[in-house]
Amino acid sequence: MTAIDFIPFVERLATVSGEAIMPFFRTAFALDDKNVGGVFDPVTEADRAAETAMRRVIGQTFPSHGLIGEEFGSREAESEYVWVLDPIDGTKSFISGLPLWGTLIGLLHQGSPCYGLMNQPFTRERFYGDGHAAFWSGYNGGNEKTIRKLRVRPCHELERATLMTTSPQLIPAELRPRYEALESKVRLTRYGGDCYAYCMLAAGQIDLVVEAGLNIYDIVALIPIIKGAGGIVTTWDGGEPSKGGAIVAAGDKRVHELALQILNAPEADKS
Amino acid sequence: MTAIDFIPFVERLATVSGEAIMPFFRTAFALDDKNVGGVFDPVTEADRAAETAMRRVIGQTFPSHGLIGEEFGSREAESEYVWVLDPIDGTKSFISGLPLWGTLIGLLHQGSPCYGLMNQPFTRERFYGDGHAAFWSGYNGGNEKTIRKLRVRPCHELERATLMTTSPQLIPAELRPRYEALESKVRLTRYGGDCYAYCMLAAGQIDLVVEAGLNIYDIVALIPIIKGAGGIVTTWDGGEPSKGGAIVAAGDKRVHELALQILNAPEADKS
Repeated sequence: MTAIDFIPFVERLATVSGEAIMPFFRTAFALDDKNVGGVFDPVTEADRAAETAMRRVIGQTFPSHGLIGEEFGSREAESEYVWVLDPIDGTKSFISGLPLWGTLIGLLHQGSPCYGLMNQPFTRERFYGDGHAAFWSGYNGGNEKTIRKLRVRPCHELERATLMTTSPQLIPAELRPRYEALESKVRLTRYGGDCYAYCMLAAGQIDLVVEAGLNIYDIVALIPIIKGAGGIVTTWDGGEPSKGGAIVAAGDKRVHELALQILNAPEADKS
Repeated sequence: MTAIDFIPFVERLATVSGEAIMPFFRTAFALDDKNVGGVFDPVTEADRAAETAMRRVIGQTFPSHGLIGEEFGSREAESEYVWVLDPIDGTKSFISGLPLWGTLIGLLHQGSPCYGLMNQPFTRERFYGDGHAAFWSGYNGGNEKTIRKLRVRPCHELERATLMTTSPQLIPAELRPRYEALESKVRLTRYGGDCYAYCMLAAGQIDLVVEAGLNIYDIVALIPIIKGAGGIVTTWDGGEPSKGGAIVAAGDKRVHELALQILNAPEADKS
């Protein structure tokens, strides 16, 4: 099987997860804090319901596949094919009512991301890719479904770049001066966004996404979308991004290189 | 005439402005900077097209009414009825591809906001109110239009509050320590949002919006929505908000009062 054979199956996962989540969006529901006394990290009923629904469908259809999920952990994570799921990436946007969260469905083949989809069921948008091509489907404010090829935009200097990050506070204190040095050079910065930011990069709307502390399920699904749209994604030190950690994604490899220079400059640590 | 008589007309303004804007959303188009050498303030073709379309419809239907617009200035601003228009509130979200901008259509009667509508044509959402009641219409990820009454949620202490502001950098340096003192007390802060933040407050999803430097067209349309949902909106010193400036909106008057205490505490200036 190749990644392309999984497309209708991934669409089905997106549909079942969206159906599980939507009844909970913008309604009163119980919140839990995973990190008691730590960073505010809400886990919603929606998160659990969606992951449960996707795990059930994967288990029925591909019992030999592995699975890594944000809510319920891993099983058979050494299998040839491993699904990597984040039912609600952007839980803080979710609980605030903002439509910038998404469901991330990634597929690893022999440890490498081979297919990914981001589903936003409120706006009815899907962003998906296989590392060679990437697409958006949505409704553009009407009733007619449209499919468009995703393509990054050129950007050769930081002074013209739009940067997104979920929140500077999520970047560990020891790395933040380097992040701030980068932010001070770009034309425009937007906070929030989570997975939506990477999708806007793939769509050619923004130029850079810089984050730190990502988990594997925050990034695996996005890599084939970014690369499929012609973009580049690595760790801050230029390494393989598919385990998460400190991540830099760019639409143009020139601006990616410029960002890495600043994020790795030793003098930035002085401030 | 009362505010209620204008509802179908305001819906028509929302429709014509949305039709003018949508062809420009997420496509390459020319940008202008209004403040050359100053803060990055993109003005889009969409902004101008939408205001032109709304001005035309208002001029044809209510030639005696006044008009205050973000793009093309004022006319007859002392009339009994004055329309206050911001075709794209949230231009930075707009150019980044994020669906958090909106078209603001406000109506002043003898200088007081009597009706307001926020239109988000990509998500097909409308938030509207007359100061006594407020409503949301939208599609919730499906094809069926739903209308819901908007209602703020109770929140009696800052430690449980979710705060939104478009960007702390938009708050003037002399006021920022007071804003930061407030931000350090709340449970969760989200940046970005512009008009969408006030609508999430009216919908009971968040508790506080604090901004500074707003223009009249940034706030007039939102006041009847916030008040119609049971919320409170004033300037930082507790005054009348309809001219803009430094604004505090809250879902619960207890958390509004607590926010005003911190925003007006003289000792906050020391830091």
